[in-house]
Amino acid sequence: MEHTVKAFDEDITKLRGLIAQMGGMAEVAVQNAMDALVKGDDALAEKIIADDKKLDALESEVDKLAVRIIALRAPMADDLREVIAALKIAGVVERIGDYSKAIAKAGRQIEDRKKFGPLTLVPAMGEIAAEMVHDAMTAYAARDAVLAREVIVTDEKVDNFYESIFRNLVSHMVENPSTISSAAQMLFVARNLERIGDHATNVAEMVHFAATGAYPVDADF
Amino acid sequence: MEHTVKAFDEDITKLRGLIAQMGGMAEVAVQNAMDALVKGDDALAEKIIADDKKLDALESEVDKLAVRIIALRAPMADDLREVIAALKIAGVVERIGDYSKAIAKAGRQIEDRKKFGPLTLVPAMGEIAAEMVHDAMTAYAARDAVLAREVIVTDEKVDNFYESIFRNLVSHMVENPSTISSAAQMLFVARNLERIGDHATNVAEMVHFAATGAYPVDADF
Repeated sequence: MEHTVKAFDEDITKLRGLIAQMGGMAEVAVQNAMDALVKGDDALAEKIIADDKKLDALESEVDKLAVRIIALRAPMADDLREVIAALKIAGVVERIGDYSKAIAKAGRQIEDRKKFGPLTLVPAMGEIAAEMVHDAMTAYAARDAVLAREVIVTDEKVDNFYESIFRNLVSHMVENPSTISSAAQMLFVARNLERIGDHATNVAEMVHFAATGAYPVDADF
Repeated sequence: MEHTVKAFDEDITKLRGLIAQMGGMAEVAVQNAMDALVKGDDALAEKIIADDKKLDALESEVDKLAVRIIALRAPMADDLREVIAALKIAGVVERIGDYSKAIAKAGRQIEDRKKFGPLTLVPAMGEIAAEMVHDAMTAYAARDAVLAREVIVTDEKVDNFYESIFRNLVSHMVENPSTISSAAQMLFVARNLERIGDHATNVAEMVHFAATGAYPVDADF
């Protein structure tokens, strides 16, 4: 039994390591996507799109390891909940990568960016979203329910940011019809950042699930 | 042993029933969201938003049942893969509900809809997306890898639809600055339909995972 427990702990450590790796890549993807957008760095945008495949591969690795752990170690109660939470968190983090990829793609379609004012609207929102991803993954690694709660609260800030950016972009479109196509891409960037905030919040809610076996009452995913 | 196998089969049947129920609700949510959008039916939009909570609750029920099945029945190999796939599919179907909710919310913000031409652009795309959800869930229920493949192929059609609607909406914005705010909402509707197609594709790819233990090589989630 001693041996089995030790083997399970090793497996879980590996599983958590994979999730931490995914979280780090997702956080970098958000930051890089904003950099590529603001600077018009197409090479960086290409890199984000290519790197997303690594996130997909890691998620698949998490799935396989989780299945192996459950099959070989037959974990019970809290241990089983932790493996299930890892499976779900891997899926959410992979989607954060997808949203970053979408931001990178939108950025490549912004025309005449030197004269395109709305670029200055989103970086602050991007920073908060990336920070939410970072804090959600930290809360996961540390099983920190307090930090998880902070992430859930911050989501409202991102939602408000989004609303004001949306209004700004619509006015900009009305005043600058020639930039409507680029402004539409910026609408998607803001929307994707808002979704990244939602998904970081989902991770925070799942940290709660892993710790307590129940989603917070205000969970919405 | 006979008893355990029978109990497991009963559990799996219940799990698949919950997923089928989620799939049915998600398909209806997509159709209702498009109806509410086109007809400007705010009451229906409210209903979609309220019903989404049921999908969230069903997902949480699937999670709990899956954990209970794994803990009590200790399924192996294919059986375990099926339980894991159910967990992941429930998460994806719940997100299809979220996208439908987003479409319903966008629809409520379309102004002066009688004169708003772009409303006619999306219903055909909505039908294909709803059909993809239907077929993906049918493929899951029937473990039908061929139908799953068809869903994956159809996704390209939805993507092309989205590209052409995006171009149409941008031209419409340029020509009708007074409707830009409504047209921006339509951009989100088209984008959400495109995401619904992606998620139906993910379910189809997971049907493949449940059947074979591997994602298709062209999987992208």
